[in-house]
Amino acid sequence: MLQLYTYFRSSATYRVRIALALKGVPYTSIPVHLRKDGGMQHSSVFAALNPAQLVPVLVDGDALLTQSLAIIEYLEETHPQPALLPSDALGRARVRSIAQAIACDAHPLCNLRVLQYLQNNLGVTDAQKDAWYAHWMALGLEALEKDLAHHASTGIYCHGNTPTLADCCLVPHYTNAQRFYIPLDHYPTLTRIVHSCQQLEVFQQAAPHRQADAE
Amino acid sequence: MLQLYTYFRSSATYRVRIALALKGVPYTSIPVHLRKDGGMQHSSVFAALNPAQLVPVLVDGDALLTQSLAIIEYLEETHPQPALLPSDALGRARVRSIAQAIACDAHPLCNLRVLQYLQNNLGVTDAQKDAWYAHWMALGLEALEKDLAHHASTGIYCHGNTPTLADCCLVPHYTNAQRFYIPLDHYPTLTRIVHSCQQLEVFQQAAPHRQADAE
Repeated sequence: MLQLYTYFRSSATYRVRIALALKGVPYTSIPVHLRKDGGMQHSSVFAALNPAQLVPVLVDGDALLTQSLAIIEYLEETHPQPALLPSDALGRARVRSIAQAIACDAHPLCNLRVLQYLQNNLGVTDAQKDAWYAHWMALGLEALEKDLAHHASTGIYCHGNTPTLADCCLVPHYTNAQRFYIPLDHYPTLTRIVHSCQQLEVFQQAAPHRQADAE
Repeated sequence: MLQLYTYFRSSATYRVRIALALKGVPYTSIPVHLRKDGGMQHSSVFAALNPAQLVPVLVDGDALLTQSLAIIEYLEETHPQPALLPSDALGRARVRSIAQAIACDAHPLCNLRVLQYLQNNLGVTDAQKDAWYAHWMALGLEALEKDLAHHASTGIYCHGNTPTLADCCLVPHYTNAQRFYIPLDHYPTLTRIVHSCQQLEVFQQAAPHRQADAE
């Protein structure tokens, strides 16, 4: 059975949990507490497993996979149904682009290690840290809203009427924004799509508060 | 013909330029000056094209594509030869993971808009900005070196003996590090691979100094 190194609040891992749930792939969770004792992802055991010292890590037999989007593409190839990528090249490019707008542009600036560096190394105030978070979140959400609100391929979900890789990324990102009280009134399309996703039991299964290591 | 909105120093665009050159796909470059007049990527014309106000943007007929890795996957699907992804699922996962370690973890923290925010909004000193840049670059390069130095699939290039998506990402990232005087002695595997890539005329064609908008 697949093994997933996970942390309930890690939004990159949450993406993979959604993909696994959507595809109905069974797996065992191995919790990695990102905040305990300076972060268990920095332990020698975990660092030997993944030198980047980040979750998620997916273990499939002898193979060890890192990076949430690479893992989801791997799941798409090894468990093709239900498909999380459209059947046409342009549709796939759009879905991957939405996913990467979150995974490459917005999320990396708002994750734990960056906020820790701002506080510990640059000595920013709580207000400056919150402003940093709000700035990058808003920038990313605004661009996504503009794209999704006006694109003919947007459906019940980010792309069409079945969940895709883009929704696997949007839901964790949006729920992070909620957790940090980012105003979301200006993003009606994103809000509608996230609510549609959250109606589905498979999205609920993958949610942070449903994980064994939730606090 | 394809049109690529580009900036000679944009490392995300450089990735796409390498992929286009490797595949021999002709295209027209449309320069977007990221530093002139507050950044032409923020102009109303460009923002209407790409709400994220980032390069690259690839135009293929009526279709407009964003996000460097999504664009390269699209090129891989529409121009399969030479392949930039391995033929096996695990190999593809590894190549995508290396690409994303750069595009999702390392690069987003070191790009222009982030350095501008640190200076303009947080008022950090030049030394603090340089330390930030060096910190995230070293963290990413160390993890990559550990992975590539010990993996059986590492060859002349990041994965095997032909260039892949991973090399399209590594070369721009590494040359950025060189430009900012990041010490690179500790990364012999990365250095060897980048040198192998730079022997190839197609990588040279894509380099910043060879672009029409180079300064």
